[in-house]
Amino acid sequence: MELWFSEEQATNIRFSFKVKEQIYSKQSDFQKIDIFDTDVLGRVFTLDGVIMTTEKDEFIYHEMISHVPLNVNPNIEKVLIIGGGDGGTVRELTKHKNIKKIDMVEIDEEVVIAAKKYLTFTSEKLDDPRVKLYFQDGIQFVKESKEIYDLIIVDSTDPIGPGEGLFSTEFYNDCYSILSDDGILVNQSESPYYLKDARELVRATSKLKNIFPIAKVYQYHLPTYGSGHWLFGFASKKYDPIRDFKNIKYDFTTKYYNLDIHLAAFALPTYVQKMIDESKIVWDNYKLNI
Amino acid sequence: MELWFSEEQATNIRFSFKVKEQIYSKQSDFQKIDIFDTDVLGRVFTLDGVIMTTEKDEFIYHEMISHVPLNVNPNIEKVLIIGGGDGGTVRELTKHKNIKKIDMVEIDEEVVIAAKKYLTFTSEKLDDPRVKLYFQDGIQFVKESKEIYDLIIVDSTDPIGPGEGLFSTEFYNDCYSILSDDGILVNQSESPYYLKDARELVRATSKLKNIFPIAKVYQYHLPTYGSGHWLFGFASKKYDPIRDFKNIKYDFTTKYYNLDIHLAAFALPTYVQKMIDESKIVWDNYKLNI
Repeated sequence: MELWFSEEQATNIRFSFKVKEQIYSKQSDFQKIDIFDTDVLGRVFTLDGVIMTTEKDEFIYHEMISHVPLNVNPNIEKVLIIGGGDGGTVRELTKHKNIKKIDMVEIDEEVVIAAKKYLTFTSEKLDDPRVKLYFQDGIQFVKESKEIYDLIIVDSTDPIGPGEGLFSTEFYNDCYSILSDDGILVNQSESPYYLKDARELVRATSKLKNIFPIAKVYQYHLPTYGSGHWLFGFASKKYDPIRDFKNIKYDFTTKYYNLDIHLAAFALPTYVQKMIDESKIVWDNYKLNI
Repeated sequence: MELWFSEEQATNIRFSFKVKEQIYSKQSDFQKIDIFDTDVLGRVFTLDGVIMTTEKDEFIYHEMISHVPLNVNPNIEKVLIIGGGDGGTVRELTKHKNIKKIDMVEIDEEVVIAAKKYLTFTSEKLDDPRVKLYFQDGIQFVKESKEIYDLIIVDSTDPIGPGEGLFSTEFYNDCYSILSDDGILVNQSESPYYLKDARELVRATSKLKNIFPIAKVYQYHLPTYGSGHWLFGFASKKYDPIRDFKNIKYDFTTKYYNLDIHLAAFALPTYVQKMIDESKIVWDNYKLNI
């Protein structure tokens, strides 16, 4: 018998890997959680059939979502993570000694329970004394929070299912309200390549540009996400990610992020820059209209 | 009926797209040539079941293989292309008015015949008066050539089948011999992510470092190649791709390449830089050993 997992990365486009063993499966109140062992990608965690984390390439996502804002403002002390249930973002953030407090708001406690048991490569720092976990809706948390944060990281799924409200103007406005005067927001911003992802990239970035004085995107190579070409948003009240970039030598090592990559990640291909600048899609199905 | 194409991008990893219609299929003396129409990727050209060109993203590959060397030495006049049967590299090179001569050596005439008929979006400039086509083995051509070139572009398939010899030390030495004193070689250098591709990246780059005083790699996002993270080699007798970068304003537009991307493409993730620097693989199956 051969067991294969397939994800529909776009309409009529599929990515598949052979499964050695399915080691976990649960329908939570919010989504279907599955964990597989594979020989090429290591352990793989999916939500509603979409790859979230693989042991082989999760370091790319988690280093790029964490170290970029910390190299723009190394004095960040209070961080709020929305989502991020596998714990990988916490793992990277805890490497920064200046950080004093990390609040992580994950809507689905079942994800954290599964991650603590089966994804120890990402979840290993969830018990760090600086980390406090809240199992509730991130949208509500941000709306009602009395705390002020230096950094908010929106480590969300795609804007369907539980992740949808995390791409709304109202949510971004509420984030702005609980950020300090030099606060930074980093968010999972989808991909420029397939139409459904590009639409969300343009919508999210366009909303952030209307709220924050500085709103940019930066890219990274993530092989197991559709197209492999993914972006994070960088929205800020004061700091520019290039102008205010700090050339810091850390006492920890990274496997993807480095100082050259920090600067290079903000250099966008012409077609991506055009979508961001003009807040519109330049793909008409497979044809690039520029 | 549904017709699906699947490529094994790595052991137990598959990428698949739904086919609207297979419009061409031929076993040539060298390889199996297939052309499909799809709704998401447009027209797709494969060799021996491996995606070579899609209408949706071929611009990325062809702009990055062509405009990077031309922005380091804009005085390039004579170019040799090894491979490149779909014509996309020729199409981009003919945009540079300084170029006087383009010799293209494609081992498989059947590829060019198919491209001229079915891939007009890449092959449209193969009849440019500066272009001369040779249907013969590129290895033999380079060994016996009396011509001196300013730029050699190795626009090859993976190093299995007809492309294999184009990754050999002997071939690179022969290229060196027919390059002018300020000559540049750009070659398709595979990908750092899956083990089989990473091995070839390391081997090819290590050979070029032994022959050329300057040997670097630069990366680009190509969604329909395995992992989406691909590299070209830049080997040169004199010019450094960053130090000698020329900030040229062209009279043509590009969709991926731009001046920021030129510089950013040479900034490599730490794990890739380490493989290049140490000429060894840092992946042990899915585990990154750094």
